[in-house]
Amino acid sequence: MPSDPLPGLEPGLEPGYDVPALPGMSLEEIETPALVLDLDLAEANIALMAERAAAAGVALRPHAKSHRSAEIARMQIEAGAVGVCCQKVAEAEAMVRGGVPDVLLTNDLVDPRKMARAARLARTARLTVICDDPAMVPAWSRAAEDAGVELPMLVEIDAGSAACGIDPGAPAAALAQAVDAAPGLRFAGLQSYCGVAQHIRSPSERRAKISAAAERVRLTLDHLEREGLDCPWVTGGGTGSWEFEAAGPWTEVQCGSYVFMDADYQRDTAAPGQALGEFANALFVLTTVMSKARKGTAMCDAGLKVQTMESGPPRILLPDPGNTGLEVLGCSDEHAKIADPDDLLKLGDRLRMTPGHCDPTVNLHDWLVGLRGETVERLIRVSARGRSL
Amino acid sequence: MPSDPLPGLEPGLEPGYDVPALPGMSLEEIETPALVLDLDLAEANIALMAERAAAAGVALRPHAKSHRSAEIARMQIEAGAVGVCCQKVAEAEAMVRGGVPDVLLTNDLVDPRKMARAARLARTARLTVICDDPAMVPAWSRAAEDAGVELPMLVEIDAGSAACGIDPGAPAAALAQAVDAAPGLRFAGLQSYCGVAQHIRSPSERRAKISAAAERVRLTLDHLEREGLDCPWVTGGGTGSWEFEAAGPWTEVQCGSYVFMDADYQRDTAAPGQALGEFANALFVLTTVMSKARKGTAMCDAGLKVQTMESGPPRILLPDPGNTGLEVLGCSDEHAKIADPDDLLKLGDRLRMTPGHCDPTVNLHDWLVGLRGETVERLIRVSARGRSL
Repeated sequence: MPSDPLPGLEPGLEPGYDVPALPGMSLEEIETPALVLDLDLAEANIALMAERAAAAGVALRPHAKSHRSAEIARMQIEAGAVGVCCQKVAEAEAMVRGGVPDVLLTNDLVDPRKMARAARLARTARLTVICDDPAMVPAWSRAAEDAGVELPMLVEIDAGSAACGIDPGAPAAALAQAVDAAPGLRFAGLQSYCGVAQHIRSPSERRAKISAAAERVRLTLDHLEREGLDCPWVTGGGTGSWEFEAAGPWTEVQCGSYVFMDADYQRDTAAPGQALGEFANALFVLTTVMSKARKGTAMCDAGLKVQTMESGPPRILLPDPGNTGLEVLGCSDEHAKIADPDDLLKLGDRLRMTPGHCDPTVNLHDWLVGLRGETVERLIRVSARGRSL
Repeated sequence: MPSDPLPGLEPGLEPGYDVPALPGMSLEEIETPALVLDLDLAEANIALMAERAAAAGVALRPHAKSHRSAEIARMQIEAGAVGVCCQKVAEAEAMVRGGVPDVLLTNDLVDPRKMARAARLARTARLTVICDDPAMVPAWSRAAEDAGVELPMLVEIDAGSAACGIDPGAPAAALAQAVDAAPGLRFAGLQSYCGVAQHIRSPSERRAKISAAAERVRLTLDHLEREGLDCPWVTGGGTGSWEFEAAGPWTEVQCGSYVFMDADYQRDTAAPGQALGEFANALFVLTTVMSKARKGTAMCDAGLKVQTMESGPPRILLPDPGNTGLEVLGCSDEHAKIADPDDLLKLGDRLRMTPGHCDPTVNLHDWLVGLRGETVERLIRVSARGRSL
């Protein structure tokens, strides 16, 4: 699978300035700090998710906000995904430019310029949008008509996250009617994504949260049926909860983090047999100890500009953690401070860390270093890095 | 002052895909989310800091890790700064390529490839490096000799942060001797930067922390003098503490955050007359309410991919905060959730937020929108964005 045909990959790329490695380098030659993807593990995660979704009878539409990479999106689609989800219009544009044919834009828009861009994108890709407020229907309708397209639109209902989404039942059905009646728009289904459920640690409590969301979806489906509106598509679900959504009435799941897995997801407990327990940590920050001036601690070169800390610190990966006591105490801009009670680390030692939260961590990097075994196979461009417009 | 002469600013830049605004747009036309710099306030911060440092009799070498922008570095140097500090070699390279003639690399290196890059940079700019471990002196010496330069090197001493830095006194003096004896290297002075002092809230406690660091510097200066090593340069200090360092024995201060100021620095209490109390919040995230489906809350479009949360949430800027009760409850990847107890916000309302922590927030953006009054004057490239190698 080639990297994106974007400028700069081969000619003119300076290792150490633009990229931390070049294809053919050994793991030991990668400059740090670097974000490294173990390709065997990532491919296994992609295959496992596709297989389990198929077995559960739901479509898989991975969320590209996790990787922001058209190349990884194409890998997911080749493995059976129906397309991807995006949060932002610019992210969707980067995906379509990178060869992704089918995008669901899972976020609510209010700026007519963004709606116009989304509608224009629908000329060259299968693009679906969402809405949670009747006030936005006229602007969406104009954008679709101006672009000369019919935009499929999902109604987003509140899944119990107390975030976005119209109230289920009658308000949602009324919005669906308004969408379907608007020139240029076609009501295509429902979105119900429960973000807060993903990091509830206990599987029974996650299940209960999704059961409550399912009741809201069913209530809305009843109202839609009464009004004669067909609803073939119900989408939602993330890596932590999707098997509960797959039991219905969802028809499609939006898992994203499963490709990489992060330290925060590892704190979730998997239900017996749940795929969550089988996804591997495929992504790691490679870092070097660059100061060992203090007894009991070591400083390494992976700070807040290469990994984010809002979901807790990264986990140090050790072949045999034993009783090393090594753990990340905190990060400043360019340093992570490591507890090293037995002074096991030496200047120049290299460590792997699993980021606390993959999505914003990946967004700090222009390239993932794609590792096959102990050798850099290719660089994977984070083609929508920074594209939050 | 022109923007960096980097490709893409005028031709080929797509508003909404590459940049949130173009010069000449009004504040209301800027697409969101965007990181906006109030140029009047930033220029006033830059002038105030230069004036106060001059009055205090210390050189000013602002830390470029705060802005990662060669254009802002040049503004600081035009106002009187002697040069800038950088944390990373690639950051320093971006500054030199952007016209900055004098860089102090304030971070310890262990990779000979990075040392070689730093030494090569010293051919075209005045570059100074640091070291906190005698084990690294031979590699630095080789790098300087290979590049055919004499590298000025500071010895970094522990300032009480329990992070990087050799022990003060005899160990530091021995390292200085080793540096001065090594071919290609010249001992040039000391670095003592106390990161942990910057966010101690009470000015008397900050002062006490810096007084303790000053004792460590003086102890080391005594040892250096006994050994006949000249030490004309002592550098350190940040926005929260620099006036304490300026009382001596420091000769130079490294403040960075003063250009922008963030919500975390606002929680520090300034000593009477301290510049910290006079710097303005010049940087803000501009965001739009994009869902108002729930009573009591509003969702806006500025999440973890446009502002970081590890130093606490951003502060909402209101012309008259009164008893609005508006505050940021938390951020997900692309959303901030706002408490709106009286439902004052409407879909499409735009808000300004002061980021919790400027340095990593700026590093998420390729461009700052430079605002003069209510009009976009220019785009300022974050030319070292993402350059942590």
